[in-house]
Amino acid sequence: MESRIKRVRYNARRHSGNVGDSPGLVVIPDGALKPIISIFSYNKDELVTCEGKDLKDVFKQLKKCDNHTHWIKINGLGDVQLIEELGTHLNINSLVLEDIANIHQRPKFDEYDDYAFSTSRIVHFNSEEELVNNQFSAIIKDNLIISFEEDHEERFEAVKTRLKVGKGAIRTAGPGYMCYALTDTIIDTYFMLLAQIGDRLDAIEDKVYTSADKSIMFSAQQLKRTLIIIRRASWPERDKINDMIRSESPLITPEVKLFLRDAYDHCIQAMDLIENYKEVTSSIIDLYLSMVSNRMNEIMKVLTIISVIFIPLTFIAGIYGMNFARQDDKGHVIKDNMPELYWNHGYVYALVFMFLIAVAQVFVFWKKGWFNKL
Amino acid sequence: MESRIKRVRYNARRHSGNVGDSPGLVVIPDGALKPIISIFSYNKDELVTCEGKDLKDVFKQLKKCDNHTHWIKINGLGDVQLIEELGTHLNINSLVLEDIANIHQRPKFDEYDDYAFSTSRIVHFNSEEELVNNQFSAIIKDNLIISFEEDHEERFEAVKTRLKVGKGAIRTAGPGYMCYALTDTIIDTYFMLLAQIGDRLDAIEDKVYTSADKSIMFSAQQLKRTLIIIRRASWPERDKINDMIRSESPLITPEVKLFLRDAYDHCIQAMDLIENYKEVTSSIIDLYLSMVSNRMNEIMKVLTIISVIFIPLTFIAGIYGMNFARQDDKGHVIKDNMPELYWNHGYVYALVFMFLIAVAQVFVFWKKGWFNKL
Amino acid sequence: MESRIKRVRYNARRHSGNVGDSPGLVVIPDGALKPIISIFSYNKDELVTCEGKDLKDVFKQLKKCDNHTHWIKINGLGDVQLIEELGTHLNINSLVLEDIANIHQRPKFDEYDDYAFSTSRIVHFNSEEELVNNQFSAIIKDNLIISFEEDHEERFEAVKTRLKVGKGAIRTAGPGYMCYALTDTIIDTYFMLLAQIGDRLDAIEDKVYTSADKSIMFSAQQLKRTLIIIRRASWPERDKINDMIRSESPLITPEVKLFLRDAYDHCIQAMDLIENYKEVTSSIIDLYLSMVSNRMNEIMKVLTIISVIFIPLTFIAGIYGMNFARQDDKGHVIKDNMPELYWNHGYVYALVFMFLIAVAQVFVFWKKGWFNKL
Amino acid sequence: MESRIKRVRYNARRHSGNVGDSPGLVVIPDGALKPIISIFSYNKDELVTCEGKDLKDVFKQLKKCDNHTHWIKINGLGDVQLIEELGTHLNINSLVLEDIANIHQRPKFDEYDDYAFSTSRIVHFNSEEELVNNQFSAIIKDNLIISFEEDHEERFEAVKTRLKVGKGAIRTAGPGYMCYALTDTIIDTYFMLLAQIGDRLDAIEDKVYTSADKSIMFSAQQLKRTLIIIRRASWPERDKINDMIRSESPLITPEVKLFLRDAYDHCIQAMDLIENYKEVTSSIIDLYLSMVSNRMNEIMKVLTIISVIFIPLTFIAGIYGMNFARQDDKGHVIKDNMPELYWNHGYVYALVFMFLIAVAQVFVFWKKGWFNKL
Amino acid sequence: MESRIKRVRYNARRHSGNVGDSPGLVVIPDGALKPIISIFSYNKDELVTCEGKDLKDVFKQLKKCDNHTHWIKINGLGDVQLIEELGTHLNINSLVLEDIANIHQRPKFDEYDDYAFSTSRIVHFNSEEELVNNQFSAIIKDNLIISFEEDHEERFEAVKTRLKVGKGAIRTAGPGYMCYALTDTIIDTYFMLLAQIGDRLDAIEDKVYTSADKSIMFSAQQLKRTLIIIRRASWPERDKINDMIRSESPLITPEVKLFLRDAYDHCIQAMDLIENYKEVTSSIIDLYLSMVSNRMNEIMKVLTIISVIFIPLTFIAGIYGMNFARQDDKGHVIKDNMPELYWNHGYVYALVFMFLIAVAQVFVFWKKGWFNKL
Repeated sequence: MESRIKRVRYNARRHSGNVGDSPGLVVIPDGALKPIISIFSYNKDELVTCEGKDLKDVFKQLKKCDNHTHWIKINGLGDVQLIEELGTHLNINSLVLEDIANIHQRPKFDEYDDYAFSTSRIVHFNSEEELVNNQFSAIIKDNLIISFEEDHEERFEAVKTRLKVGKGAIRTAGPGYMCYALTDTIIDTYFMLLAQIGDRLDAIEDKVYTSADKSIMFSAQQLKRTLIIIRRASWPERDKINDMIRSESPLITPEVKLFLRDAYDHCIQAMDLIENYKEVTSSIIDLYLSMVSNRMNEIMKVLTIISVIFIPLTFIAGIYGMNFARQDDKGHVIKDNMPELYWNHGYVYALVFMFLIAVAQVFVFWKKGWFNKL
Repeated sequence: MESRIKRVRYNARRHSGNVGDSPGLVVIPDGALKPIISIFSYNKDELVTCEGKDLKDVFKQLKKCDNHTHWIKINGLGDVQLIEELGTHLNINSLVLEDIANIHQRPKFDEYDDYAFSTSRIVHFNSEEELVNNQFSAIIKDNLIISFEEDHEERFEAVKTRLKVGKGAIRTAGPGYMCYALTDTIIDTYFMLLAQIGDRLDAIEDKVYTSADKSIMFSAQQLKRTLIIIRRASWPERDKINDMIRSESPLITPEVKLFLRDAYDHCIQAMDLIENYKEVTSSIIDLYLSMVSNRMNEIMKVLTIISVIFIPLTFIAGIYGMNFARQDDKGHVIKDNMPELYWNHGYVYALVFMFLIAVAQVFVFWKKGWFNKL
Repeated sequence: MESRIKRVRYNARRHSGNVGDSPGLVVIPDGALKPIISIFSYNKDELVTCEGKDLKDVFKQLKKCDNHTHWIKINGLGDVQLIEELGTHLNINSLVLEDIANIHQRPKFDEYDDYAFSTSRIVHFNSEEELVNNQFSAIIKDNLIISFEEDHEERFEAVKTRLKVGKGAIRTAGPGYMCYALTDTIIDTYFMLLAQIGDRLDAIEDKVYTSADKSIMFSAQQLKRTLIIIRRASWPERDKINDMIRSESPLITPEVKLFLRDAYDHCIQAMDLIENYKEVTSSIIDLYLSMVSNRMNEIMKVLTIISVIFIPLTFIAGIYGMNFARQDDKGHVIKDNMPELYWNHGYVYALVFMFLIAVAQVFVFWKKGWFNKL
Repeated sequence: MESRIKRVRYNARRHSGNVGDSPGLVVIPDGALKPIISIFSYNKDELVTCEGKDLKDVFKQLKKCDNHTHWIKINGLGDVQLIEELGTHLNINSLVLEDIANIHQRPKFDEYDDYAFSTSRIVHFNSEEELVNNQFSAIIKDNLIISFEEDHEERFEAVKTRLKVGKGAIRTAGPGYMCYALTDTIIDTYFMLLAQIGDRLDAIEDKVYTSADKSIMFSAQQLKRTLIIIRRASWPERDKINDMIRSESPLITPEVKLFLRDAYDHCIQAMDLIENYKEVTSSIIDLYLSMVSNRMNEIMKVLTIISVIFIPLTFIAGIYGMNFARQDDKGHVIKDNMPELYWNHGYVYALVFMFLIAVAQVFVFWKKGWFNKL
Repeated sequence: MESRIKRVRYNARRHSGNVGDSPGLVVIPDGALKPIISIFSYNKDELVTCEGKDLKDVFKQLKKCDNHTHWIKINGLGDVQLIEELGTHLNINSLVLEDIANIHQRPKFDEYDDYAFSTSRIVHFNSEEELVNNQFSAIIKDNLIISFEEDHEERFEAVKTRLKVGKGAIRTAGPGYMCYALTDTIIDTYFMLLAQIGDRLDAIEDKVYTSADKSIMFSAQQLKRTLIIIRRASWPERDKINDMIRSESPLITPEVKLFLRDAYDHCIQAMDLIENYKEVTSSIIDLYLSMVSNRMNEIMKVLTIISVIFIPLTFIAGIYGMNFARQDDKGHVIKDNMPELYWNHGYVYALVFMFLIAVAQVFVFWKKGWFNKL
C-alpha cells in the first residue's frame, strides 16, 4: 500500500503574475487548459443541457430561457478573453476576474453589489496517486451561477444526476443552492481523501509493528504534507461557509442557509479528522523512531556481549601462546617459566578454565538482566 | 494489567454514503443492527413500560396517553423505513434523519421550529476491552423524546431505575430533563473510562520503574489514542451543553438548565482529566525512553570497559608470542632479540606487569567516575 | 533534598458515586473523616468561639446571636446526615450538597437565590512530604459562612488570629469578606508550595551540574506533576475569583471586591510562577539528558580511542607470531620467509615500529581534535 | 543551490537612539544614506516627474501644481534636517518623524488629525543573496504621499510604469490608492522571497534523500530564521491593512478599501505559506536527523557484525597457537596436551570448523533479521 | 564573551510576608535598603531640586510650591514607617502600600478615586553581569508623582536631563507624563538588555560552528531564563500601558495617551524580539546537539572502520601462528598440516593477501559512502 505514496510538493507557492502588477489584471497560469463550457438551464419543470458551447451560445441561452436558473460550468482557464468578456457582459469587478485566473486563492466568499464570488480548493489523489490541489471558483448573480475549474475532470457527476432526477430542492432553490451543492460535494471529497490517508496510516502503523524500515519515514512525511495541504483548504473553507451563512445577500436564501449549516458541520468534522490524523502521524513517527532505536540497541547489545565473552578467552590463549623459554640461551633451566605448559592435562585445564570464565560472564550478564529485551 | 490493552483504531473516518449524495438522504451504516423499540410513558403518577414494540404500537401509545411524557428508546439503526416513517409522522427535517443514521456526527444541539435534536458520543471499553465509540442521538418534541443508540447494550439502567422510583424531577420535568439525564449518564461513563485509563497509566508507570520493555511504548500509544478519541467526544459535548443552556426553546426549561450547568461542570472536569492524562502519557513515554537509553548506555559502558582493560593485556601477550629468534639461520647469536623470554621468572614478571596495567586502568576509570551509575 | 521527593499520584480521578446516579445525591467519599464543628460568632464588639459542637448547638447558636456574623467551620465530611440536615435547615439546593461531598470539584463560584457556593483546592505538601490535594468549599448566606474541609488539619490559624485581634475589616465586613480571607489564605499556601518546588528545582539543577544520576529524572517528573496539579487548582481559581468580582450578589460587597481584586492579582502571580517552573523543569530535563549523553559519549570516545590504538599493534605482534618456516620439511632453505625475525635488533625494531604507529595515531587523533571535550 | 544560503543575522535588534531619549527626537541610524528625492505629480491628464531635487524644489512643485496628486519618494534617511523641515512644513507630529528615522518599526497605520502614517517592512534577498530587512514608511496628507526608503534601490518600477501608462485607478484615486499600490507591491515581494525559500527547501529536501550532510542543518537553520523575519514583517502588516480598511479617514476612500481587501487576502496567503514552510523546514530537519542516525546505525551494525564474526575465529586460532608441550621438561610424553595439533588433517579440520562457526553466526544473524535495512 | 554568562536564578518566588497575613500589611523585603528621597518640583518656568531630604521636608516642599508638579523619587524600601506615613498623609489605600513593599508584583495600573498606582519591572544586567529584576512603582495624585525603586542605582539620568533642559512636554504635561517618561525609560532598558542577549546569542552561535563544547548548553539555558524573566516583565507591561491608554482618569491626559501609544508600540516590539530570541535560543540548542552528535558519530565511525579493517588481518596472522605440526609425536609426516608455512615466499604471500583484504575492505566501505562526512 505504501508503495503508492509519492513525493508531495507544494506547487501552490507562486502568485501568478509579476511583482507590482496592476490589480485586476487577469494572468493565465502556466499550462492552463482550453476552457470547455457546459450550460445547464433548469427550472421546476425542465432541464436543458448544452455542452461544448462557446461564449456567444451562452449569452444566447441566457436570453432565451430567462425564467430558468443557469449553471454555466467552465472547465479550463486557458483563455483570458473568455474570462474578460464574461466579466464585461455580467459587469464583474476586475479583481474578481483576476482571482479566477490566479489559482492560488484561499477559499473565500466575497459579496458585491448584485453578485457574489466564492472559491474553494479541490484536493484529492488523482488516478496516478498524485495529489491534486486545484482551485474551484464560482460567480453567483441573479438566476445564474458560473463555476470555474482548472481541469477537464468530471467531479460533479452526482450533482448532475440529482439535477436530472430533479428531486429535492436542487431545481427550485436557485443558484445559491447550486453553489452549496457544489461546495458540499467538494467537502465530501475531503472525506474520501481523508479515508485514503487513514488507510495509509493504518498500513504504515501495521508496518511499524512488523517490518519497520526507513520508507516509513518517507511515507509519514508525505502524509503529513498532504494533511497540511488539506488543512490549508478546509480551515478557510469553514470560515467561508460561515460567511455565507451570515451573508445578507438575497442570493443565499434562508433555505440554503439551513443546508449550509449542514455543510459547516461536515467541514468541522473534516478538520477534526485532519487534526487527529496529524497527531497520529506524529505518534507513528515517534513509535517508528523508538522501534528503530530499540532494534539497533538490541543488536548492538547482543554483539557486544558476544565480543566481551571472547575477549578474556582470547587473552588467555594469548598468554599460553607466549614463548617464554624453559632454558636460557646457555642451556640452563629457567625454573618457573610457564610451568603450566608442561603440566599433565595442562591443555585440558586451560580449556576448562576458559569455559568457566565464559560461563561466569554469561551468568553475571544474565543476573544483571542484560539478556532481557529492552 | 497492560496485557488488556488492545490496538485502538480510528473507525470514525468514513462518512456513510457517497460523495455528492443528496443532503437528507438516510444511509444506513454497514452492519447496523435491527432496531429494538422500548417505550416509557410516565407522568407524576404512573410509569407505563412497553418493550419490543413496532412503530405502529408507538404511535398508538402516543395517542393513548397524551398527558404523559414519552421516552421512545430505539436500539439499532438498521431500518431506513422506520427512521423515515418516524420523520414523516413527527414532521422532522430530512437533514436530521440523515444525521441519525450517519453515525460519525460530533456532539451538537440543533433547534428547529418545534423540536430539537441532540447528539453525543458514547465512548467506553466493552467487555472485550475494545474501545466502543458510538453515536447517541435524541429528538425532543412536545412531550416526547426519542433516543437512538447503535447497539443493543443497556447503558441507561440507572436512568430507568430512577424513572421507576420516581424520586426527584425525573417524572415531572418533561423530555428536556430526560435529555439531560441521558446526556449526564453518558458523561459519567467518560469518568469511568478515564478511571480505567488512569489505572492503566499507573500500571504502566510502575512498570517503567521496575521492568520497562517495549510493550510500554505500545500501551502508551493506545492510551494516547483513546484519549484523543474521548477528547473528540467531550470537547464538542461541552459546547453542546452550553448551547442547550443558552437555548430559548421551551423544551429546555429553566429548571433543566440548572441541572445542565451541573453537567457542564462535569464535562469540564472530564476535559481537565483528559488533558492531564495526555501530559502524563507523554511524560511516561519520555521517562521510558530515557530509562531505556540509560540502561543501554550502562550496559555498553560496562562492556566497553571490560574490552578496553583486556586489549593492552592481549597486546602484551601478543608481544611475547612473537618468534624473534636468538640465533640467525647461520647459528650466529642475535644479541638483543627478546631477552625477556630468557630471564629468570620472566613469565611471572610478564603476568605481574599485565596485572599492574589492569589495575592501573581500573584505577584511572574509577578515578574518572566511569563506574558511577549514569 | 531530593530524597524528600515522593511519588505523586493523581488521586483526583474518581467521581464519587456511580454512573447515572440521581443528581443531588450526597455520596460520602471513601475514608472520609468524622466532622468536627467549630463556630465563630463575631461582630464589631465581640467574638464567641465554640469548638467541637454538634449540629443542634449550631442552630441554637445561630438563633442566639442573630446580630453576629457566624463562621461555621466543618472539618471532615464523613456524615451524610449532617450535610443533609444543614441543607434542609438552610434551604440549600441538593446539587450544592452533592458538590460538598464530591471532593473532586474544580474551583467555582455559584450564585443561588439567597446564598452562594464557593469551592477551592487546597494543595500543599504535608509533614510526610506527600502532596495533599483537598477540597475546600463554603456556603455563604445572610450573616453566615459554612466552610467544609476534608481533614482535621489546622490551616486557617492566621485567619483565626486576625479574627481574635479584630483589626481591619475582618469583624465588620460580613461573610463575604470571610470567604475572601479563607480563599486568599489558600492562595497564599500555593506560594508556599511553589517556594518549596522552587527550592527543589534549584537543588536538582545544582545536582545536574555536579553529580547527575537518574534520580533527577524521577524527581523532575514528580515536580512536573505537582505543577500540573497546582495548575489545575489555580487556573479555575482565577476564574472563580473573577466570577466573584463580577457577581451582583449582595453577599459580595464592593469593599470585598476591592480585596478580591488583590487576591486575583496573587492568583495570576501564582499562575505565572507555575508556568515558569514548568518551563524550568523541562529545561532541566533537557539539560540532564544532554549531560548524560555527553558523559556517555565522552566515555565511549576515550575507550574506543584506546582500543583503536592497540588494534594495529596487536596485529603486528600477531604477524611476528606467525610460524612461517625458514626451512621446508626437507631442510631446504626458504629464502624470504620472515627474515625480520633473524635480523640483528629485529625485536627492538619491531617495538620501535609499534611505538611509532601508536604515536602517529595519537597525533592524528589529537590533530583532528578528538581529545577535546565535546 | 544551497551554497547560496548565507548566515542570517537579526540586525533588527537595536532601537536607534539611547535609553531615555526624549520622545520625538529624530535619530539617524548608523550608515544611513544621503536622501535622493523624486517627485511624481499627476492628475487624470498629466504626469510630471522630477528626480534628484532638493526640498525647496519640492515645496515649489507642491505649490505650482496644487490640483495634482504628489508622490514624493525619498530614498535614504541620512539627513535629519530634511526630515525635520518636512515635518515642520507639513505640520507632522514629532513622534512620526522619530519613527521615520527609527528603522526598526513594526508595520502600523496611525491616523492623525489631517494626515496618516503607515510603515511596512521590505524583506527580500539582495543580489548577493543576503537578506535585506528595511523599513518603508509613508505619510499621506491631502493630495500628497511622501514615501521613505532606507536605500537607493529601485523596487517600485512597476508602480511607476502603471503611473506612466495611466490605466486603472492609479492616476485618479488619490494618495490613499498610491499608498495601497506601494504596500501591495511590498507584499508581492514577500511572495517572491517565499518562492525562493520554497525552491531552496525543495533543493534541501532533495539533498536529504540523496546526499545528506551537515550543511543541511545550517541551511535549514538559515531558512527558518528568514521565515521568522518575514513572519515578523507580515503578521503586523495584516493588522495594519485591517486598520486601514476600518479607518474612517477620508484619505482612504471606499474605492481604495476594496483594493485593500485584496491586499489583505494576499497578506493572509503569504502568512499561510510562511506557516507551511516553517512546518516543512522542521520536518526536513527531523527527516535529516533520522536519516543521519539511520545511516550511522547501519554502518555501526555492519561493522559490529563483521567484528563479531571474526572474534570467535581469532579465539580458536589463539587456542591452537598455544604452546602446550607434548613432552615435559624431562622428555616424558604428556598424553593429552593438544592432540589436535598432531592429527592428520588437523589444520584442515580447524579451518573447516572456523568456517562452520562463521556460517552459523551469519545464519543466526540473518535469521534474526539483522541484515535487513533498519 | 560567554564567560560573562552567570547562573540565573528565579529569586522572584517568595511573596514577602506570611501565609494568611492581613491584607494591607506593609512587610519590608529582606535586605531592603534605607530610602533616599529626592524631590523635583517643576513648572513651565523653573525646576527646584532637593536631594537627600526626609519626609517632613517633602511635605513642606509640597505645600510651598503648590503650583508646581512634584516628582518625589524614593530609592530604597527599607523603612515601613516612611511608607505608612506617606500613605496616611496622601490618603492611600493600605493594599497599595502593601504592593509597594511586596517587590514581586506584576506590572499593573490600578485606578483609585483620586489617585492611580502603577508598577513595572526593571530588568537588566548589572555591572557584575548578574541579572537584576527589581520593582518600580509609582503613585500619581493631583500634581504629584511618587516613584519607588528598590536600590540606589541611578537609571533615570536621561529623564532628569530632559527635566533640566525643559524642552518638550516634560515640564508642562503633569505627573501623568512623568509616569509615562519613567515607564518608557524602563522599556528602553529592555532593548538594551535584549541587545546584550542578542550579542551573546550571536557569540554562542559562532562558537557552535567553530568550537562547540558543553558550556554552550549552560549559556543557552541561562539566556533562555533571562528571556523568560524579561518576558514575564514585558507582557503584563503591555497590558498595563493599554490600561493606562483606556483609563478615564484625568491624571492621564489625552496628550499623554498619544505618547503612551508610542510606548505601547515599543513594548510590542520588545515582546516580538523576546519571542524571536527564544526561538533562536531553542534552535541554537538543537543545532549544538546535532553538531555534538554528528561529531561523535564521525569519531565512532572512523574508529570502528579502523578496527574492522584490522580484525580479519589479525585473524589471518592468528591462523599462521597456530602450531599444527608437520610431524606427529612419532615422527611420521602429517601430509597437509599447514603447508603454506613451508611454501617459498609463503610469508610474502600472506602479507600480500592481508594487504589485499585491507584494500578490499577500504574499497567496499568507500563504495558504500562510509567515508563521506555524515
